[in-house]
Amino acid sequence: MKVQTLRWANDHLEMIDQRVLPAEFRYMSYNSAESVAQGIRDMVVRGAPAIGVAAAYGVALEAQRQRNQTRDAFQQALSIAFDVLAKSRPTAVNLFWALQHMRSAWESVQAETPDSIAQALLSKAHAIYQEDIAINRAMGAHGEKLLKDGARVLTHCNAGALATAGHGTALGVIRSAVEAGKKISVIADETRPFLQGARLTAWEMVQENIPCTLITDNMAGHLMSHGDIDAVIVGTDRVAANGDVANKIGTYMVAVLAQRHKIPFYVACPLSTIDMSVACGRDIPIEERHADEVKGFRDHHWAAAGVAIRNPAFDVTPAELVTALITEKGVIHAPNKGNLQPLF
Amino acid sequence: MKVQTLRWANDHLEMIDQRVLPAEFRYMSYNSAESVAQGIRDMVVRGAPAIGVAAAYGVALEAQRQRNQTRDAFQQALSIAFDVLAKSRPTAVNLFWALQHMRSAWESVQAETPDSIAQALLSKAHAIYQEDIAINRAMGAHGEKLLKDGARVLTHCNAGALATAGHGTALGVIRSAVEAGKKISVIADETRPFLQGARLTAWEMVQENIPCTLITDNMAGHLMSHGDIDAVIVGTDRVAANGDVANKIGTYMVAVLAQRHKIPFYVACPLSTIDMSVACGRDIPIEERHADEVKGFRDHHWAAAGVAIRNPAFDVTPAELVTALITEKGVIHAPNKGNLQPLF
Repeated sequence: MKVQTLRWANDHLEMIDQRVLPAEFRYMSYNSAESVAQGIRDMVVRGAPAIGVAAAYGVALEAQRQRNQTRDAFQQALSIAFDVLAKSRPTAVNLFWALQHMRSAWESVQAETPDSIAQALLSKAHAIYQEDIAINRAMGAHGEKLLKDGARVLTHCNAGALATAGHGTALGVIRSAVEAGKKISVIADETRPFLQGARLTAWEMVQENIPCTLITDNMAGHLMSHGDIDAVIVGTDRVAANGDVANKIGTYMVAVLAQRHKIPFYVACPLSTIDMSVACGRDIPIEERHADEVKGFRDHHWAAAGVAIRNPAFDVTPAELVTALITEKGVIHAPNKGNLQPLF
Repeated sequence: MKVQTLRWANDHLEMIDQRVLPAEFRYMSYNSAESVAQGIRDMVVRGAPAIGVAAAYGVALEAQRQRNQTRDAFQQALSIAFDVLAKSRPTAVNLFWALQHMRSAWESVQAETPDSIAQALLSKAHAIYQEDIAINRAMGAHGEKLLKDGARVLTHCNAGALATAGHGTALGVIRSAVEAGKKISVIADETRPFLQGARLTAWEMVQENIPCTLITDNMAGHLMSHGDIDAVIVGTDRVAANGDVANKIGTYMVAVLAQRHKIPFYVACPLSTIDMSVACGRDIPIEERHADEVKGFRDHHWAAAGVAIRNPAFDVTPAELVTALITEKGVIHAPNKGNLQPLF
């Protein structure tokens, strides 16, 4: 994958504007925590791991911006930066995981000058970026063994290079299977309302000549009932201690259908996505986004005026429907508290 | 409902152009079988019962148009009209049912002049139109008893006044429940790719002040898992002899979810939609429509260029998932060949 979802450019962060893909390919520039938080809220960048990396850079950017301040002013500005970034989106836990790592890095050099703290935080952000790619590669190596040559794999939303620092989680497993010489074809749910499947997953697959068929979200059951799907792989925004999986709205419906049709349902899940502090899926906060997203797409609204709207951005798939979690430490079959706890 | 989906205007048929609702409300005019067939193909008119009524008028229009021809030319033109209309869409059986009734009407006056045959065929089309409304009213009266006061009812696609000559099938049941004094609220799946839920069902409900909440198709499972849905009612394009139900793509996924959550799944189904000549759902032809519909909506395409597309317009819900069929002769619980056969 030649595309870099996020890239550091000397003194600022650049992120692909995922709102306008694939019609337009452009980078947006960021030089403060607030601007990065805005980019996360607006979904310029999306995907749990990518949000985590972006937030890490958001802290580093703010430290750099404030490095000529007094120690007190610097510390105060950095605290605000952490708060602003933490409030940008509620569901994906990688955001909080990355911020926690940045906070630890800060604490370990707290006695130093603002300038060298800023240096340390930038180094940490780079490390989180590189680690994300390495983790995705490791998940790919473990997960690709689950896919047979010729497998037709359904995915929902985009858990690809665009959702991470690179390679991807769910699409990373598919990429690794292809790299291992297997012939894999992808079926992509378009993923209303933000259309990550139609715009981002399809685009990534076309870029790399991996065969990909786009369907609307309501077609997956029909294809499964006709034997046209061999496996499902999705990403996740947060996994609870009992193995319940929060992911893009619609994932739960795919999981229920997969169970009915005895199709394995895999979740590509870096350990940073598992939140042992949350007992079960019911306790994961589910973001409700703006009604306009459901009324249409971008500025093109088609819904009847006056209708009420619900727009939950995520749903919870109970652990009983999850065949396995694919982590960087290996594949966890039938996830539950007993087999997740030892990973930490 | 003041809106007339189809209306006869002295010498031609007018149909609401459902492709442009709700942004625009306009009637299109039709004066031949071929033009009506084109209107059906292009989905100016859609919904199984409305397609049947439109086809009946298509035959009547062609007879009127050819009534000054010789008997032979008239008969030949009328035969072609039947063929053209029968080929307009493959899945909804009401189309073939209506054409069969028109053919019987023709045969019963075959010895008469073209002019009086044309008169007879127009009378028959008017009768089919009126009968459709009466049937929907009867289904509503039977079906509304299944809905409790306060029920939150999910529907998929549009099985409303716009899908019929008036009142609607699934939405007809809801209308009848509201008329009976019950407080009903509707949850409408937007129904990609043609967005009948967002554009048509939402529009009908807003027009009549029936509370309606729009969701994307992938949100139904989340709402069910939170106890926000009390019942599902959908229409159907064809029911097989064993009770399997073909309906708009995505219906099957809703039915599977409803079963999991012990939510009753009702199908509003005029007897003209039951096709006893088809043993089971697998034998119902499923229309595959143009890829452009999935790439975006109307002229606004968002999908990545080069991606393959599937676009099955319908799916099959096995009878085991159907709580009951609501027909004009009453409610058939747990439909199967044994309890459907006696209706005919």
